[in-house]
Amino acid sequence: MNENVTQLINQMGAQARSAARQLAVTPADARRGAILALADALVTQTPAILAANDKDLAAGDGLSDALKDRLRLDADRLKGAAQGLREVADLQDPVGTIISEWERPNGLTISRVRTPLGVIAVIYEARPLVTVDAAALCLKAGNAVILRPGSDSLHTSKMLGEIMEQAFTKAGMPDGAAQVVPTANRDAVGCMLAGAEGTIDIVVPRGGKSLVARVQAEARIPVIGHLDGICHIYVDEAAQLDMASDIVVNAKMRRTGICGAAETLLIDRAIAATAVPKLGDALIAAGCTIKADTDAQTFDDRFEAATEGDWSTEYLGPIITIGLVDGVQGAIDHIATYGSGHTESIITDSAETATQFLSAVDSAIVMHNASTQFADGGEFGMGAEIGIATGRLHARGPVGAEQLTTFKYVVRGTGQTRP
Amino acid sequence: MNENVTQLINQMGAQARSAARQLAVTPADARRGAILALADALVTQTPAILAANDKDLAAGDGLSDALKDRLRLDADRLKGAAQGLREVADLQDPVGTIISEWERPNGLTISRVRTPLGVIAVIYEARPLVTVDAAALCLKAGNAVILRPGSDSLHTSKMLGEIMEQAFTKAGMPDGAAQVVPTANRDAVGCMLAGAEGTIDIVVPRGGKSLVARVQAEARIPVIGHLDGICHIYVDEAAQLDMASDIVVNAKMRRTGICGAAETLLIDRAIAATAVPKLGDALIAAGCTIKADTDAQTFDDRFEAATEGDWSTEYLGPIITIGLVDGVQGAIDHIATYGSGHTESIITDSAETATQFLSAVDSAIVMHNASTQFADGGEFGMGAEIGIATGRLHARGPVGAEQLTTFKYVVRGTGQTRP
Repeated sequence: MNENVTQLINQMGAQARSAARQLAVTPADARRGAILALADALVTQTPAILAANDKDLAAGDGLSDALKDRLRLDADRLKGAAQGLREVADLQDPVGTIISEWERPNGLTISRVRTPLGVIAVIYEARPLVTVDAAALCLKAGNAVILRPGSDSLHTSKMLGEIMEQAFTKAGMPDGAAQVVPTANRDAVGCMLAGAEGTIDIVVPRGGKSLVARVQAEARIPVIGHLDGICHIYVDEAAQLDMASDIVVNAKMRRTGICGAAETLLIDRAIAATAVPKLGDALIAAGCTIKADTDAQTFDDRFEAATEGDWSTEYLGPIITIGLVDGVQGAIDHIATYGSGHTESIITDSAETATQFLSAVDSAIVMHNASTQFADGGEFGMGAEIGIATGRLHARGPVGAEQLTTFKYVVRGTGQTRP
Repeated sequence: MNENVTQLINQMGAQARSAARQLAVTPADARRGAILALADALVTQTPAILAANDKDLAAGDGLSDALKDRLRLDADRLKGAAQGLREVADLQDPVGTIISEWERPNGLTISRVRTPLGVIAVIYEARPLVTVDAAALCLKAGNAVILRPGSDSLHTSKMLGEIMEQAFTKAGMPDGAAQVVPTANRDAVGCMLAGAEGTIDIVVPRGGKSLVARVQAEARIPVIGHLDGICHIYVDEAAQLDMASDIVVNAKMRRTGICGAAETLLIDRAIAATAVPKLGDALIAAGCTIKADTDAQTFDDRFEAATEGDWSTEYLGPIITIGLVDGVQGAIDHIATYGSGHTESIITDSAETATQFLSAVDSAIVMHNASTQFADGGEFGMGAEIGIATGRLHARGPVGAEQLTTFKYVVRGTGQTRP
């Protein structure tokens, strides 16, 4: 461990913790104003941001086109980001909401009150706008944030961090409310994942699978995020096949690179003879490659043979695996074995079968007659999300401002002592 | 690591995970019936339980009296435990509750539905009845549980485990719903704290500080519990001193050995001349030893000098530390520095000052004009608790059946695809 880096991160953590204490009692209006000021600054400071971005692009000459696209900013992207920030600013403020309240026979009233989570670390890669998107969502929920960009986007992210710091300070936010780690040294990540001497409460990884895997393996503090999105669609005996076909094609092909894209299609063996050719044709017509188990392969010689590994592969591309199962219980068992706890959907007209599926499948999101591509904070009406969580604790599914809070019990008495 | 022990725990974990899947769809009535059957079995099997308990007591000849008292069972204690189980059985069932529900413009309805957490590990020490208390609360919330008793109570806990297994199986619960680790080998704990190959979701330590510290230091899965209960009472300038005196004596002296007992009394410097002698007299009259900072010491020569370490010491006995602070902000700062995030109370007649304290103090429980000894699941109306959590994530404060759940999103559509 590089001692200078460790010391830097611990100092940033201490300052963030101090800021978090002040943010917890900062009025909603002031935090909203700070996010709006940041939105304005993105527009007025566009030349400075693009100049920093040019440095990253020049340094990243050897990067792939996809990576360069993630890295590259222009005036329109910054305008779009500013608009997104304004929407976050106008979300309902979650802090201080009374979740529940009751009175005890001895006259004590007890309330569960929503409070900020504290200090959030965000570790990301080449997309520099995560800097401001994530910071705004954290601030909306009254949290301090420490942002750790990837080395490819370091110039841009540092510039965004400076502009953000100025905007937040001018709007009355405490020092340390949002800080960008100014070094690409990897020891910074290790120190953050250890909690920076108890100053960081949770870590949110935003990036590819290798980043998330490292964070999950090394973190000594809770991680909010997901490694895989191996989403399943189960087409039941009682499904309308036209609806099933529309949903399957949308769930797989609308955008193949997002975590809510379907990767496995399970078909009830009872309707295989009609459903497999129909759904297979629709998928192939849409440009999808199909891998299938031996039984499904008998219906179409364009299907490739699926390997055992395919059932737990997130293709993030125009490929799907088709398997036949024995009714809804077969689907439930398959998902329990191969699923990643993200999003699964059943297509059926039977309310009873749907209930069985929705109740037995243990994923963050379970759906009935809908496309898995709806697994998204915006589509859920949360306004914005910092990611989708597949763990069982605290936050599950899309993580918006409300999910970046915790609660405390407030007990009000009139002098009660315990007998 | 002992490979046989590791293999055993991993097997128990796999069986618990399988049981958890079945419990998630087991009706509330069936789980309630199983807990009632366990209550009955404690009474009918009293002789077998006491015989096992005698073995532990004989083996623990060299134990302290306090430890023997924790270990010792008799017919009355078992009857009391059975009654406690019946109360847990009759608590409201949290599983399946709809936390919130909304409709999207595209017609999708989204519900957040409460679901069991999954597999819970409980690691405890000499109190054998934790075996059944903890298992009942876990089952009430639809969870599977793996119980790891201390070596001192192993015979008794194993016997309780056998009786529990029979009662649960007869009542239709799946195999592995509640299992007692049958070995005192410490590698079992290490394996559980690593999550037993991903089969265990959370761990709850129940016991002394050294156990909790080991669990918190080693766990690779979330821990629900608390290390210290350094609870503060702040007596404000605007306090009624008679009320303050009653509350302070109760908070410190009612039971000094519980985590909600007050350890530090902060007094507003503005009323020191009247408040310090009055509260000091009341505490000393109740049998309490007082340590104090230099300023408070000037009011009473019976006060000992407090050391820096005293401010973060959980005495768990009839000792309290008194310090003078500059108003409510001084109290808030002191608690932020030395508190353990458990429970703090302000005594004041000023609504404004109370609001400032309740909002700025970042502890699981904050109180106004009430004794910190109310920090208890029973007193909160939760019926029973598995412990009190001081972490910020997921569960905070008393952890009852509802806090041993998570949620999932259930999305219902009529064929929607995402544009």
